[in-house]
Amino acid sequence: MIKGCQNECTGGGYSGETGKQMTESFKASDLIITPATTFKEKPDPTGLVFGTVFTDNMLTIEWSLASGWEKPYIKPLENLSLHPASSALHYAIELFEGMKAYRGVDGKIRLFRPALNMDRMARSARRTTLPSFDQNELLECIRKLVEVEQEWVPYSTSASLYIRPTLVGTEPSLGVKKPTKALLYVILSPVGPYFASGSFNPISLWADPKYVRAWKGGTGDCKVGGNYGSAIYAQQEALEFGCQQVLWLYGEDHQITEVGTMNLFLYWINEDGENELATPPLDGIILPGVTRQSILDLARNWGEFKVSERYITMSDLTVALEESRVKEMFGAGTACIVCPISKILYKGKHLHIPTMENGPEVTTRFLNKLSDIQYGREDSDWAVLVS
Amino acid sequence: MIKGCQNECTGGGYSGETGKQMTESFKASDLIITPATTFKEKPDPTGLVFGTVFTDNMLTIEWSLASGWEKPYIKPLENLSLHPASSALHYAIELFEGMKAYRGVDGKIRLFRPALNMDRMARSARRTTLPSFDQNELLECIRKLVEVEQEWVPYSTSASLYIRPTLVGTEPSLGVKKPTKALLYVILSPVGPYFASGSFNPISLWADPKYVRAWKGGTGDCKVGGNYGSAIYAQQEALEFGCQQVLWLYGEDHQITEVGTMNLFLYWINEDGENELATPPLDGIILPGVTRQSILDLARNWGEFKVSERYITMSDLTVALEESRVKEMFGAGTACIVCPISKILYKGKHLHIPTMENGPEVTTRFLNKLSDIQYGREDSDWAVLVS
Repeated sequence: MIKGCQNECTGGGYSGETGKQMTESFKASDLIITPATTFKEKPDPTGLVFGTVFTDNMLTIEWSLASGWEKPYIKPLENLSLHPASSALHYAIELFEGMKAYRGVDGKIRLFRPALNMDRMARSARRTTLPSFDQNELLECIRKLVEVEQEWVPYSTSASLYIRPTLVGTEPSLGVKKPTKALLYVILSPVGPYFASGSFNPISLWADPKYVRAWKGGTGDCKVGGNYGSAIYAQQEALEFGCQQVLWLYGEDHQITEVGTMNLFLYWINEDGENELATPPLDGIILPGVTRQSILDLARNWGEFKVSERYITMSDLTVALEESRVKEMFGAGTACIVCPISKILYKGKHLHIPTMENGPEVTTRFLNKLSDIQYGREDSDWAVLVS
Repeated sequence: MIKGCQNECTGGGYSGETGKQMTESFKASDLIITPATTFKEKPDPTGLVFGTVFTDNMLTIEWSLASGWEKPYIKPLENLSLHPASSALHYAIELFEGMKAYRGVDGKIRLFRPALNMDRMARSARRTTLPSFDQNELLECIRKLVEVEQEWVPYSTSASLYIRPTLVGTEPSLGVKKPTKALLYVILSPVGPYFASGSFNPISLWADPKYVRAWKGGTGDCKVGGNYGSAIYAQQEALEFGCQQVLWLYGEDHQITEVGTMNLFLYWINEDGENELATPPLDGIILPGVTRQSILDLARNWGEFKVSERYITMSDLTVALEESRVKEMFGAGTACIVCPISKILYKGKHLHIPTMENGPEVTTRFLNKLSDIQYGREDSDWAVLVS
């Protein structure tokens, strides 16, 4: 079993309503595995479109207030049968995670810091009033699922098997309240680079303060559905302006927060003349990305330049561009790992970001370091063996 | 057919991808009706819990980018079969409406200003990048559904048949993007008063600025799932503090915005000594409620006191309470119609709102006027006959 969740796992507690002790968490040792007996053809890893092809099996675990967690199942991928009043479909009582399994150069399959995903999933569950669970037990169920589906992990160091844990409220009634039924499930999808342009082609961003992704007192720091549905309209507008992603701004001073579905990093010479890697702080409106954390950890360990979680405004950026102090800017996330940024459309002006002219040296160094760990070219306790 | 949608309905347009003209909207005249042949027992209208019992049939209409809208179906209520990657379950690409059918004192069944719901649904669809449709056609399909289920409309003037139109993204892939598949469905539920305490018992509110319902640049003015899932955690905290609903505040000055899932009204003597009915303006963070609009329309028509869409801060309210200028405060929404407010817990202090001591005269007048229209005791073009 994989260990390493950092938070205390809290159980479902006592159900006063039914008068019996609920199952506080499902257990991986209770897994009932009845895998598919017919198999889909595995796609060529060079032609994958993100999240469109799924493997033969899925993990499902049902929960109810009355009975707690049921046994976990690994079974053939199939449609979900949901009551039309299910609270996930009306009130977005839903959350997800994004992780990957990588086939290393030694043929072994690895996960990347999966305990961080389990911790974040537990926090998202609390925020959405969905049931808690033992994070180590879920991680072990996921490990088992990946083991069953191991032939789906691409034989490629530019592709991987994307893992999508999902937890949705299945309360079959319309009152706006904490759900009494829920479904946790995990599906798997072999993926190549997230962006159709390929992972290391730079992208352009559209920055307009009229749409705001997240705000203080909201759910921007959790991985919940509502953060995404509201973003797609702005994403469409970005495409109409010829940009690939939205640069989300916040507040009167147009703070830079995130990029589409990624965290954002700026490598520059700051106002004090120091070489600095900067990303916005986790103040409640920023998703605490696993790749974000890993980049901060690596850079702090290198100790070669200042590493800051700090506010950066569009005005800070514009002045720095005028003074030629900007070196590289990139997005970071599980889907793309790192993604260089070359242009920002802001207030009708195209700001050129000289990321590619600068190598991009630092962006590339992070990509190489992370993929060396993920694909087993370098030993690290961030890489967790599946089997 | 019911007419009266106020906005231009925009069609699905031309699909460049498939090279053929898509179906711009479904048509009520294409309805395929295969109703249930076994029937559930209809509940006693006095013991109904909001949104827990559903009628025998539902309306479903499928959409895809490739083919446009399919024919609408009225068929027995059944679970939905959804791909586990469906975008509603991951990214909250989903919206809903809330309407009611009332059985009048003359035995006829009426809807209340349904075109306003259809207009808002069309706006929510645009904001969530879900497909557009002809609002009159949907209204006619809903009318047909209610007609099929007419025996489910309670024989009671304190109950009604709640109508829940829902539109969800069923895109079966994980990229965060505009969906290429969607499902529109409508379910019906006989309901009594929304609050277990009965509709005209006053409720207490918990006002804490640490949770924020909606913000400028977000989706607070649309009826989309993400607005609700993020609210339940605060609602739980309100219950722990012995309050029934959340009073949502906004901004540094703690503007009063909404109450739980209702709009908010204050009837008071304002700073200039005038009798005033006030509710927050539709500035992007307020849901444009049909009951809200109707109360404003009625009050303006009466012309007996000032009617304002204006900002009210907690400080405005506190000063007015100290100066005994507050007369009544109430929530307004389709589920509860109007709901008097008697207490607000704010910064550790219980603020007593003298709504009930003042009759509540104005709150009661709105409730009576609206229910007279809804139950056919008074003729009005706001009431639309189902058959």
